[in-house]
Amino acid sequence: MTNLKKLEIYGLETIPIVKEGDNIAKLIVEAATREDIGIQEGDIIVIAQTIVSRSEGRIVNLNDIKPSPFAEILAKETGKDPRLVEVILRESKGIVRMGGHHLIMETHHGFVCANSGVDKSNVPGEETVSLLPLDPDTSARKIRDEIKKLTGKDVAVIISDTFGRPLREGAIGVAIGVAGIDPLYDMRGKKDLFGYELRTTLIAIADELASAAELLMGESDEGIPVVIVRGFKYPKGEYSIKKLLRPVEKDLFR
Amino acid sequence: MTNLKKLEIYGLETIPIVKEGDNIAKLIVEAATREDIGIQEGDIIVIAQTIVSRSEGRIVNLNDIKPSPFAEILAKETGKDPRLVEVILRESKGIVRMGGHHLIMETHHGFVCANSGVDKSNVPGEETVSLLPLDPDTSARKIRDEIKKLTGKDVAVIISDTFGRPLREGAIGVAIGVAGIDPLYDMRGKKDLFGYELRTTLIAIADELASAAELLMGESDEGIPVVIVRGFKYPKGEYSIKKLLRPVEKDLFR
Repeated sequence: MTNLKKLEIYGLETIPIVKEGDNIAKLIVEAATREDIGIQEGDIIVIAQTIVSRSEGRIVNLNDIKPSPFAEILAKETGKDPRLVEVILRESKGIVRMGGHHLIMETHHGFVCANSGVDKSNVPGEETVSLLPLDPDTSARKIRDEIKKLTGKDVAVIISDTFGRPLREGAIGVAIGVAGIDPLYDMRGKKDLFGYELRTTLIAIADELASAAELLMGESDEGIPVVIVRGFKYPKGEYSIKKLLRPVEKDLFR
Repeated sequence: MTNLKKLEIYGLETIPIVKEGDNIAKLIVEAATREDIGIQEGDIIVIAQTIVSRSEGRIVNLNDIKPSPFAEILAKETGKDPRLVEVILRESKGIVRMGGHHLIMETHHGFVCANSGVDKSNVPGEETVSLLPLDPDTSARKIRDEIKKLTGKDVAVIISDTFGRPLREGAIGVAIGVAGIDPLYDMRGKKDLFGYELRTTLIAIADELASAAELLMGESDEGIPVVIVRGFKYPKGEYSIKKLLRPVEKDLFR
């Protein structure tokens, strides 16, 4: 018999370096065609935040930044560039934890992550940093709509980043924006193998998909900023990544 | 051109219900053969904790448990069965957080998770619960060695569970035991697209693989307790899952 439960995950190898104003959907469709993968109905397209940020011009030159007095203080505390700290503060609505050289911030979107997602990796010019997209759900929706227009196919889009986390070492891929997919799969009411109600019922499938994609992306010189996941049956519809953000008052670790 | 960066992920559909004493490696090899997948050199076999626990007899009948006075108190606080709380306490070296009906414990292995991983799902008999394997790294190593013996192939084995987490809603697949793979991929020194040192350098690939596998496992009546990941180049060798456990003194959230 042939196995039917199968996912295929493709890392696109021929996406060019993305510049401000580039049409990412078009670059993805072209690369997928060029690489004999194509775009199919129900594909999940996972896109690294860094290229979305670059296409949206979310790049800051540190030479243009004048640090505030508080940024200077935090820079001294953490050993970071004061201009970088200033950018981090501007991207944040609060400091969640500080310690050593770590600044764990809450971004304006509500993500809790190191440095509010401000990142030196994969941005040209040593004095520039990339910021998270202003509204990653909207970025994802626009790319999804454009792929539909170019190919006629309904896909899901996930914008991903790599976050550290409490309790466990090592960063993992997480979703920061979604379109066309429910990021939180509700299994309540389903029965387990022996007919009992399931205990763990809400699965963060958008994060799991981002983690699966991250395996191929790495963050390295291999340059794979887009991954296509094929064969996963997911709950479709319009949702926001905010479903994955736990309110502070419900979080036993804040 | 044909794309070369590709993962294939297979969910084994014909693993029988596992009983105490069963040879899980043999069940996996038989199912993979039956389903025309086979076992290949370098495959990563992700196995749900629940079947490992069952094969190792890590099942407790609650009718055999006499709750301690403290278990009775916690049961009242959390609205749980006092016998279940007693089992949870026996599996733990401490309570990390309490609130509402949640008991976030540190297990004897050092995992921080709800109820110390004690679980009602997928265990036959309404009065029984499953415990985590005593030493999941050893369980993984035994299965890896047995697969080598049966097939001649070197594979990696990851034992997975589904954990909730701080900060974000929804549970995700995580690794609780590994064999033949470094769970934490060290990318330090690699350069990014533009030649700068990478910032996020340690990736918890064992957790990402467990999350990828969880997409196919669900925790539902579909009954897919084993997933094979094919095509991922991973750092081989003998390591422990302890590499993914952050020491409490280094954790800004404990």
